[in-house]
Amino acid sequence: MKTVGILGGMGPLATMDLSNKIIKYTDAKKDSDHVHLLIDNNTKIPDRTAYILGEGENPEKYLIDSALKLEAMGADFIVMPCNTAHYFYDTLKSSVTIPFINMIDEIAKELKGVKKVGLLATKGTYYSKIYEDIFNKREIEVTIPSIELQEIVMELIYKVKKGENNIDEIDINSVIEYFYKLGIDKIILGCTELPVAFEKMELKGNFLDPTKILAINTIKLVGKKVIKI
Amino acid sequence: MKTVGILGGMGPLATMDLSNKIIKYTDAKKDSDHVHLLIDNNTKIPDRTAYILGEGENPEKYLIDSALKLEAMGADFIVMPCNTAHYFYDTLKSSVTIPFINMIDEIAKELKGVKKVGLLATKGTYYSKIYEDIFNKREIEVTIPSIELQEIVMELIYKVKKGENNIDEIDINSVIEYFYKLGIDKIILGCTELPVAFEKMELKGNFLDPTKILAINTIKLVGKKVIKI
Repeated sequence: MKTVGILGGMGPLATMDLSNKIIKYTDAKKDSDHVHLLIDNNTKIPDRTAYILGEGENPEKYLIDSALKLEAMGADFIVMPCNTAHYFYDTLKSSVTIPFINMIDEIAKELKGVKKVGLLATKGTYYSKIYEDIFNKREIEVTIPSIELQEIVMELIYKVKKGENNIDEIDINSVIEYFYKLGIDKIILGCTELPVAFEKMELKGNFLDPTKILAINTIKLVGKKVIKI
Repeated sequence: MKTVGILGGMGPLATMDLSNKIIKYTDAKKDSDHVHLLIDNNTKIPDRTAYILGEGENPEKYLIDSALKLEAMGADFIVMPCNTAHYFYDTLKSSVTIPFINMIDEIAKELKGVKKVGLLATKGTYYSKIYEDIFNKREIEVTIPSIELQEIVMELIYKVKKGENNIDEIDINSVIEYFYKLGIDKIILGCTELPVAFEKMELKGNFLDPTKILAINTIKLVGKKVIKI
């Protein structure tokens, strides 16, 4: 059975969300039917957005260190539940000999026939255009919120990172409405804290969850069965 | 900041329960305030109860392998969210040079002044008397259910391991009543699947959760602050 390395800690709740989703979607009758996960919940990795926007320490060496550690521990491939950290994807991929899955590409592959999506993400993800780079190759147009509305998304993300419970106070619906008014009804929760938030807030809509897609594809890559969804 | 090694996979939901509780109870304002966890969700470890009761492969070498891996990867101490696996505690402790926390002793230390407890656990835990050995040294008497009622506890535990949702069908209250009738009102959820089950079933009572105690003590051992509970 293949062992999966999870390069996490960005943040811890998002890492647990991926791990929980892998467990939830695996068709298992006993412990040994489940995926063997090696998780580096590496909370030492500096903030990705801060660095991309010009402040703070470069996370790259911490990320490479984690990737190498997971490989040394026996991981057969690596997944990374942090969208913004995919800014460093190319370097990370070449730092290890085992496969390093690209979560953004995994969701792009699921969007056959889709022409336009809205993207909810960190300012680091918006600024670095990591979604546009991958999605445009598959002829999917990515729309991002206005600068003012980006602040609302950041506020929600960082409230989740702080473990704060009063996330209902954040007017995320105004950002969702912004996309609907532009005729965009498919919205990507492109920061791994967002599926955690949206589940807590019980928001309904055509939201695409990269964490869930990554979880399901991870189970398939290991050669295990996914439950009927 | 100290790195915590979690020797897990026994089962995956129980491992996530400990990890989630460490995150939940840490007083953190950002990702880097959280505990750096290295988790080996090692689902290859054979069933502990099966071996203790005379069948199945010996889990010991798998456990030692995980412990050594966590140490090699930089864990400063190890915690293990599986009660039954503490049957192998002495061997595991001597296989590594870093501290290996004993979850059963951690809960025993919390019970100053308590004379009697009821224990809900696997048949492997009951048979090997790992609770009695530690608790009796602290002059706490451990009462276990009758053989018939032990089957109910096992059924609940293994339903959780199977990820089955219909756990409400299990009459665990009959086991809780058994303790109450003996004048025992403090009951230890001495199998790491049980806090997961009891939370889902929303059961109320004086239940002691070793996973929660281990989580809180882990945060303190790392030198971080625990939220006000």
